[in-house]
Amino acid sequence: MPQIKYKPIGIIHSPFKEPKGTPIQPSGAKGINGTVEIFLEYAQGIKDLEGFSHIILIYHFHLSKKSSLKVKPYLDDEVHGVFAMRGPSRPNPIGISAVRLLRVEGTTLHIQDVDIVDGTPLLDIKPYVPDERSRENRVA
Amino acid sequence: MPQIKYKPIGIIHSPFKEPKGTPIQPSGAKGINGTVEIFLEYAQGIKDLEGFSHIILIYHFHLSKKSSLKVKPYLDDEVHGVFAMRGPSRPNPIGISAVRLLRVEGTTLHIQDVDIVDGTPLLDIKPYVPDERSRENRVA
Repeated sequence: MPQIKYKPIGIIHSPFKEPKGTPIQPSGAKGINGTVEIFLEYAQGIKDLEGFSHIILIYHFHLSKKSSLKVKPYLDDEVHGVFAMRGPSRPNPIGISAVRLLRVEGTTLHIQDVDIVDGTPLLDIKPYVPDERSRENRVA
Repeated sequence: MPQIKYKPIGIIHSPFKEPKGTPIQPSGAKGINGTVEIFLEYAQGIKDLEGFSHIILIYHFHLSKKSSLKVKPYLDDEVHGVFAMRGPSRPNPIGISAVRLLRVEGTTLHIQDVDIVDGTPLLDIKPYVPDERSRENRVA
């Protein structure tokens, strides 16, 4: 199976200058403001994005250390499989976050509820589309 | 900015043998069954995944054609920015789907509500964690 190659389309900015102190759960990011700078060559791709109240950011955990398949989470004595966790050190260090889109100014997206380290390379944006499944019960 | 390189961790199987006929909205995938075959070298990473009722699959749209930044959707006369759409042809052809996890048998995940073409390379799995934001109003 060949390698898959991607290129950043922008950079995420936030008040979190290092992984330490960055929220590990989305709930810890409530009210935190940040921005996304879209690279000029991709500027046309954000047309109509401001019609959405929330967007999904897909990004590369650029500070991720070498991954292990078994992880012992903070405040937990047992090891868990890496795919049952959301931490940054994983075989393909891809992160996803749903954030609130406050406004778009040129190639800058002003966002809220940000749980991402400053300087993180952005790979993709998708509109957040409410799904009827989100109203069902889920167990974790 | 350097290229980012990923390697598939498994393959997604579904009844959809080609893009034509594959649901373009998650609601069209309701009740559709599929499987994920995790490559043996990543098998330890799925430990404890079966505790979750839903998981998020992150995958590579391997059949994606060359992307354009402006897209004219099916049943729409206007062009929209590619990042305001969820289609497969995008600068970095990454797909995400939340699916129901029915059961885990060895390195096979049995999943439901699948909107993914058969043979799609899987990049990552994350547990679906219900978020209080999913109960807020969103506009699209």
